[in-house]
This record gives sequence, structure tokens and C-alpha cells, in this order.
Amino acid sequence: MNQHFSKNRVEAFSDGIFAIIITLLVLEIKVPHIHEYNSTSELTKALISLLPKLIGWMISFFTVAVIWVNHHRIFGQFKHLDNGIFWWNALLLMWTSFIPFPTAVLGDYPNNLTSIILYGLVMSFMALSFTLMHKYALRNKNLLYDEIDLISFRKGTTYSFIFGPLMYLSGVFLGFIHPYLAFAVFLAIPVYFIFSENTK
Amino acid sequence: MNQHFSKNRVEAFSDGIFAIIITLLVLEIKVPHIHEYNSTSELTKALISLLPKLIGWMISFFTVAVIWVNHHRIFGQFKHLDNGIFWWNALLLMWTSFIPFPTAVLGDYPNNLTSIILYGLVMSFMALSFTLMHKYALRNKNLLYDEIDLISFRKGTTYSFIFGPLMYLSGVFLGFIHPYLAFAVFLAIPVYFIFSENTK
Amino acid sequence: MNQHFSKNRVEAFSDGIFAIIITLLVLEIKVPHIHEYNSTSELTKALISLLPKLIGWMISFFTVAVIWVNHHRIFGQFKHLDNGIFWWNALLLMWTSFIPFPTAVLGDYPNNLTSIILYGLVMSFMALSFTLMHKYALRNKNLLYDEIDLISFRKGTTYSFIFGPLMYLSGVFLGFIHPYLAFAVFLAIPVYFIFSENTK
Amino acid sequence: MNQHFSKNRVEAFSDGIFAIIITLLVLEIKVPHIHEYNSTSELTKALISLLPKLIGWMISFFTVAVIWVNHHRIFGQFKHLDNGIFWWNALLLMWTSFIPFPTAVLGDYPNNLTSIILYGLVMSFMALSFTLMHKYALRNKNLLYDEIDLISFRKGTTYSFIFGPLMYLSGVFLGFIHPYLAFAVFLAIPVYFIFSENTK
Repeated sequence: MNQHFSKNRVEAFSDGIFAIIITLLVLEIKVPHIHEYNSTSELTKALISLLPKLIGWMISFFTVAVIWVNHHRIFGQFKHLDNGIFWWNALLLMWTSFIPFPTAVLGDYPNNLTSIILYGLVMSFMALSFTLMHKYALRNKNLLYDEIDLISFRKGTTYSFIFGPLMYLSGVFLGFIHPYLAFAVFLAIPVYFIFSENTK
Repeated sequence: MNQHFSKNRVEAFSDGIFAIIITLLVLEIKVPHIHEYNSTSELTKALISLLPKLIGWMISFFTVAVIWVNHHRIFGQFKHLDNGIFWWNALLLMWTSFIPFPTAVLGDYPNNLTSIILYGLVMSFMALSFTLMHKYALRNKNLLYDEIDLISFRKGTTYSFIFGPLMYLSGVFLGFIHPYLAFAVFLAIPVYFIFSENTK
Repeated sequence: MNQHFSKNRVEAFSDGIFAIIITLLVLEIKVPHIHEYNSTSELTKALISLLPKLIGWMISFFTVAVIWVNHHRIFGQFKHLDNGIFWWNALLLMWTSFIPFPTAVLGDYPNNLTSIILYGLVMSFMALSFTLMHKYALRNKNLLYDEIDLISFRKGTTYSFIFGPLMYLSGVFLGFIHPYLAFAVFLAIPVYFIFSENTK
Repeated sequence: MNQHFSKNRVEAFSDGIFAIIITLLVLEIKVPHIHEYNSTSELTKALISLLPKLIGWMISFFTVAVIWVNHHRIFGQFKHLDNGIFWWNALLLMWTSFIPFPTAVLGDYPNNLTSIILYGLVMSFMALSFTLMHKYALRNKNLLYDEIDLISFRKGTTYSFIFGPLMYLSGVFLGFIHPYLAFAVFLAIPVYFIFSENTK
């Protein structure tokens, strides 16, 4: 039997999941209920009170976009996909598809340390799946394109992928001091990734 | 590391997002509750009262379809995708994936100026993302196919893409006079794009 | 500017929409609420009372699958896609993405003639979009592959595509006699298409 | 008319459906409502009480991933797709797209034998669709790639595909003794598939 996976189909399946998650995030933002239907000031006030949810949605949107970029980058170096890569990828997709839940919990309970810990832990597990997929690829070099520079590929692990889980955990720890510090870190992580990629 | 993005995957990811948004829009239209289950006149009346929501849904449907066409047109001229294009595209996708929210707000509060302003602003930001992506491509001509006529490409900016945000803002301003004027403009914009493309 | 559309992207966009619609249909079937959590007889009874909704879901599932097959068949004969085909296709997608709404109305009010008329009309408009797309292709033969037998292609119009709207309208008229007659026709149409294709 | 289906489009359509189902599963997990917004202990307790739902979600996630792998494996051996394969595939997709419903019922009524029977039956029907698709391919060998070893392909039927429905039915029967035995089997099936594939 064919041991390899069709890279096209695994990418299409993963892209579908990423696209759905990034789009579902907005469904958590519900139309506010106001009493005077035509009152502009009441509707404006109601919309402004949604601002924390909107910011949470933007953070999660760009976080999923960064996950997509990392996924695209690591898959761009695979010549073949075997069962191991497929199931590490499935683990990554599982944690990623879970993101709408901690995002919604954080949106409803932004000042509750438990929701900050939940968000940070889910993101750490997601980031850890990347690290494990990357480590697996390093132990199965026949999966990679021949021309890939293994030293810089290994460095990529140390910097980007171990960095990821650690950053999210540091956000959780700062949340013990003040919730806003955790928010700042959760926002800074995708922003850092976006700009570090743009200047490379 | 590979600096370029796989155009296929970015397009597949974007198409997935567009397809989901355009389909989610219909979920805002809820089955009406009537008291006499078998009364055809009561159900007919309830369905007719949904007409403003249905029109709003049709407008947003064709607006997203026009966004898809513009996306298809601009991406058709890219030979390569770099980080810049990717993140301007992510910004465009963010505003586009937000469209179900202002559409739902407008559907619930059609006579409220705040919901008209919200809808017009989100659409302007979406249209502005196109302008910025287009401007970025003009400053990075190596991303475009060699045979592209840069003068007509630059003209495309001036006409279609600066035009877009301005049209939505003019709809907002007309909304100050009467909500229906804003609706007329929001409907006219995709209709204009559909027919201007068909006669070209 | 490039007048033609990338067939791959239009198909991917359409397939995404079809896949989402066919999957969203199941969301209309809600978990029943029972009072005694561990009573198997109460849960069994509650599930059995969902049977009409389940049958409605199956009908709509196979109806969308048949739409996909017809879409696949007609697109398989296009060499190029122009603006006309794109917008007739957008109209088809609009009616198709609307299907979850009349399906839900019919599931909630199965004995109400209004919901039968709504379902039949939406399906007729959907089927009519196919007819119009097909007629447009016949007037723009340069869009079709050269080897296509135009006589059998035109016949295809007369039989499958004019047939479609008429069948749905006949279901509506039979609904005036008894709702179950309309259901039988709405079920018979996709079944007929499935088996007529299998025996060709 | 073209009797064959475009394998690319059928796969893209199927992948879209699989991606949506696997992502929708998480929507069943609702943000808990607590009374003291900032109480970490209350939110922690509420999240812990969601654990059975989370485990159910993980089981269904990996079950759909295993379905995807089996779909990928069987489609990898098809040279052509005809009407028969398409409609057996549609039947498989129908049962698969139904999975969120029995998963939600099982999550709400985990100790109710009826929900265990429902889950097991839906999974058996899903697995049976694979068996029937496989049997159809064996009777239409011209659909398979020439180099496929038919004896091992037939063996594949006996072991994996007849095995599937039987395993789910055995889970249902064990549920009559104790619900947890059924859960153990429903969890063991995807786990078995994942590791049996990894060691092959």
C-alpha cells in the first residue's frame, strides 16, 4: 500500500480547517440588544462595550494567520508526508480548531485568571505541536527536500518553535500579576511573528 | 528559507474564507416563530416581514462576490507573493470576514444611523485594504508578471480601488439625510461593479 | 486586463460553498431536551419525533449533491469562463446557499402550504439559474470545448434544465392537494437525477 | 457526455466537507455561565464539568481524521471515478456530516443507552459506506490503477472495512453492560487505526 500521503490533499484539508476557524471566530460577536431601536447613542454605546471582544477577535484572527504562515513554511520543506507527519499535523489542527473556545471564554471573562490560563495553555499546546512536528522531521530527514540546510532548519526549531510555547506560558505567568499584562503578551506574539517575518 | 509564498495555498486559503463568509450570511436569517402552526397567512406575513433582512443578505452576498472578483483580478497579476502581499491580504480577509457582523447589525436596526455608519466604515476599511495591497504591488514591481502594463495597472488603482472606499463613505454621508439613501448606495456599489465588469 | 477567470479558482470557490451548505444543513437538527436524563424510552421517543426533520435533511443533502453533480457536468464543458458565466454561477450559488433557510422553515412547519411554496420556489429559482447559465453558454459557443456535440448539449437544456424548475413547480401545485404529495415530489427529484445518471 | 468525474473536484468537495465537520464539532462546547464573573474557582469548576464533552469532542475529532485517512487511502487507488463511486462517496459524506449530531446527543446524555446506540449505529452506517464503496470498486476493476495488487486490496476489505462496522456494533452491545465500556470502544477504534497505520 502507498505509505505516503498526497501533500496536496493534506494541505487542502488543513487550509480548509484554518479558513473555517478564522471565519468562525467572528460568530462569537453577537448583535447587541438595545431597547430604543432608533437610538444612535444607545447602539453606539452597545457597540463600544463590544470593543474588548473585538480586540480578542483580532488577536485570534492574526494568531491563526500566523499559525497558517508557520504551517505553510514547515510544509514547504517536506518532500514527502508520512503517517508521523500526518498525525502530528492532526494534533496541531486539533488544538487550532479548539482556539474559538478559549477565545470565547476569554471574551466573556476577561478579568478571570482561569480564562487567561486556559487561553495560554491551549496556545502552548498548539505551539508545542509545531515543535514536535519539527523534531519528528529532523529525525526523518528523508521527508525533507534534499537542498534544505539542516543546520538552519534545526536553528529554526530552537528559535521559533520552542520560543512559541515559552512565550505563551510567560503570558500566563504575567497574568498572575495583572490580566492586562497577559493580554499584552498574547497580542505581542502574533505581532512579533508578523514583523519578524517581514524584515527577514 | 523560502521567502515566497505558495500562490496556490494562499488562494485556496482565501477562497475558503470567502466561501465560508458568503455562506454564513444566510444563518442570520432565522425561521420565524408563529402561533398557529398551519396558518398560511400568518407564516406568509412572517416571511414578508423578513424581506428587509433578505435584501440585506442579497446585498452582502453580491458584495462578497465582487470582493472575490477583485481578489481574483489582482492576484491574477502576481507572479510571486511575498510577506507584504500576504499580510495586506490577511488584513483584507480580516475585514471581509467581519462583514457578517455589520450586516446583522444593519438587518436588526435598519433605521439606526449608527448601524449604517458601522456598515459603511467596515466596507471602507475592506476596500482600503485592496488599495493598500495594490499600492504595495506598485512599489514592488518584481511581484507582478512582466507583461503587465503598469500604466493601466496604476490607473486601475485610481479608478476602482480609491473609488471603492469613497463610494462607501459617500453612502454613510447620505445616510445622515435618510437611511434609504445609504441602502441605495450600498446596493448600487456591487451592482455597478458587476455591470462595469460585464461590459468591459 | 485578463478577461477570463481562472477555472480552478471559480470551481474551488463553488466547491467550498457547496461543501459548507451541505454540512450546515445538519446544524438545524438540535439535540432534544428531555427531563429524565437517563430515561432511554424518553430519549428514544424524542429522537423519533425528529424523524421528519431528519428526512428533510436527507432530501436537502442529496438535492445539494445533485446540484454539485450538475455543476460539475456543466463546468466540465467550459474551456473558458467569462464574466457572464461567473455571474450566472454566482446567482446559482446565491440560491443554493439560501437552501438551508427554506429547509428549516419546511422542517418547522411541514403541514403549512406557505413553507411548501417557499421551498418549491427557491428550488425553482436555483434550477432556473442552471437553465440561464446553460442558455448563455449556448449563445457564447467559444466558451465551450471544441469537441462538444452542440446538438446533444442543447438537448441537455431541454430535458434536464427546463425539466428541473417545472418539476419543483409541479411539486408546489400538488402541495395544494396534500402536503405529502409535495414532499414526495421534492424527494423524487434528486432520486430521479441520481438514478438517471447512474444508468446513462 | 463525459461519464467520468474530475477526481480533483470530488476530492476537494470531500475535503471541504471533512474540514467543516471536524471544525464544527467544537461549536458544541459552549462557554459556561458563572455568577461571579471574576471567581477563578467557579470558572475552573465549570470548565472541569465540561471535561466529558471535551473528551467526546477529541474522540470525534480523531474519528473524523481517521475517516479522512481511509478516504485518502481508498481514493488514492482510483484511476477514474464513475457515478457509482460518486454516490457511494456521497452516502459516506452524508453519514460523516451527521456525526456532530450523535456526538452532541452523547455529550448531553452520556449515561443514556439510547445515545450510545445512536452514536454506534451512525458510525456503523458510516463504516458500512466505506465497505460498500470498496466492494463496488472490486466489481469495477477498471476504476483502479493497473498496478494495484487486487488480492491485498480484497484483504483490505475483509480486515479494515468489515472490521469497522463490527467494532462499532460491539461497542453498542458492551454499552448494555456499562456506558463506559461503550466509550472505551468508541475511543479505542480511532486510536487503533492511528497506531496500526503508524506501524505498517
